[in-house]
Amino acid sequence: MNKLLVVGSVAFDGIETPFGKADKIVGGSATYISLAASYFKLNQCVVSLIGGDFPKNYLEMLKARNIDTSGIKVIENEESFYWKVKYDNDLNSRETLLTAINVFENFNPQIPESYKDADFLMLGNIHPRLQMQAIEQMNKRPKLILLDTINLWISENRDELLEVLKEVDVISINNEEAREISNEYSLVKAAKKIMKMGPKYVIIKKGEHGVLLFHKDAVFFAPALPLEEVFDPTGAGDTFAGGFVGHLASTSNLSFENMKLALVAGSNLASFCVEKFGTQRMESLTQEEVYRRLRNFKQLTQFDIELNEV
Amino acid sequence: MNKLLVVGSVAFDGIETPFGKADKIVGGSATYISLAASYFKLNQCVVSLIGGDFPKNYLEMLKARNIDTSGIKVIENEESFYWKVKYDNDLNSRETLLTAINVFENFNPQIPESYKDADFLMLGNIHPRLQMQAIEQMNKRPKLILLDTINLWISENRDELLEVLKEVDVISINNEEAREISNEYSLVKAAKKIMKMGPKYVIIKKGEHGVLLFHKDAVFFAPALPLEEVFDPTGAGDTFAGGFVGHLASTSNLSFENMKLALVAGSNLASFCVEKFGTQRMESLTQEEVYRRLRNFKQLTQFDIELNEV
Repeated sequence: MNKLLVVGSVAFDGIETPFGKADKIVGGSATYISLAASYFKLNQCVVSLIGGDFPKNYLEMLKARNIDTSGIKVIENEESFYWKVKYDNDLNSRETLLTAINVFENFNPQIPESYKDADFLMLGNIHPRLQMQAIEQMNKRPKLILLDTINLWISENRDELLEVLKEVDVISINNEEAREISNEYSLVKAAKKIMKMGPKYVIIKKGEHGVLLFHKDAVFFAPALPLEEVFDPTGAGDTFAGGFVGHLASTSNLSFENMKLALVAGSNLASFCVEKFGTQRMESLTQEEVYRRLRNFKQLTQFDIELNEV
Repeated sequence: MNKLLVVGSVAFDGIETPFGKADKIVGGSATYISLAASYFKLNQCVVSLIGGDFPKNYLEMLKARNIDTSGIKVIENEESFYWKVKYDNDLNSRETLLTAINVFENFNPQIPESYKDADFLMLGNIHPRLQMQAIEQMNKRPKLILLDTINLWISENRDELLEVLKEVDVISINNEEAREISNEYSLVKAAKKIMKMGPKYVIIKKGEHGVLLFHKDAVFFAPALPLEEVFDPTGAGDTFAGGFVGHLASTSNLSFENMKLALVAGSNLASFCVEKFGTQRMESLTQEEVYRRLRNFKQLTQFDIELNEV
């Protein structure tokens, strides 16, 4: 089985949507990524940093899902990273109410010896300097390095981000981030520019409007499943990324055709994530639920045109 | 060959986008619909009303594309309908600068005798009372009646719109219009409500984010082709509708599977429409261009997951 190493935040979120509030629930990029990836056949380890206030039973839940948490360092007398967010009525925009870095101020990712040869390295959204530190600790070049980032680092730490992008195979960002990195409004042009910065694959997430995968001159699109109710978009992008890398790691196939299936697998998992607050829905999916919804995805998007008939 | 009857506006547009301006160019819902439908094997007739200022050579161009223009009445001493619009930088929102109804004030659609038995009736965006008048003139119930409308009629003439919706098989509207008709934010819920108002098929256009087709519990999605440059979104929705009904009329197959292909065919044509100002691009497409882009659509959306492997 392939080894997946996930580096990112394990933290607290405070979330307010038009449908309700949840404070100090568990979130963080690495949490969502690893939960999503846990639905695939692979070995994975999470590297992060938490305070003494983090619920130990949550770590037990991750372990029970076959996630190696030995890379999650605990500093008992400090507080975990804490982010509060409020979503607008349409859930398409959000306002950060609080960012308490806390224990993360001194985060220096320490990759466990047994994962320095990981086949897949997924760098969740953290400071690009920390992402670079993680790459530098690897004993051998992973088969695939994937990176997620946000506007904050694009605007405040652009040079460091550009340095780490040179080392990365796949970048996963949303449409606004793609525009900000590239200074191009057209997502097609943006993807082309970003491919020149290092990543051979550019994933542009458009939230409820689906996700695009660019590689050389090829492009593939997976929609988001149209849902009657979306309760909380938090973590959907990370869940997507976890499903994407999870599919690739479990199939050991880096062809573009298989990347398409990874995009669908990621979108499929993300469609569950938004149905409940926080990680709730992602903690207890059954393979049957995942499978059934994948069937919905096929019905939603697949058609049969004989091109010679046109 | 099936007969398609198109009722709607043939008019002038003034268009301002970030990429340029074009004033008093030919537009109108029926114009775009019939141009798109002209790429399919069918007989079609347009019913509309124009003033003496409308360029006669444009009507000749439509005739040359096998469009029967005998239903386009000319009132020589009046001016054609004229609409001016300015698009925002991102082309996703627009402001109406001028709506000069002109000759359209006295429009009473007169269906030519030879098209009162049309197999397909496409009601472009005009006052719902006029849409109803068109339906009432038919000798026999068409195999399919399709309707497009806009916010103006939803807010100002809701009762008349609801009356005509009872007679309609397919409604084609954008996401904002779907929300306004249904008072539901979720497009899934909106579609369900609208299906109770009459239409068995609800098409919700999301512009650059693609288009959804709902029928009973089924849903199908076709993305918009990601383009490097979009010059002018005017007429994209009507071009889509023309391609959708054109595919159905030329194949004489109203199964949901064939509706999926119609959705793709319409999206494919709409992707050309936005590449130049007004109807320019739609006047001179080759079958080879249409075919080639349909291949791009397949590559963009089709994947191969064996569900028993999951």
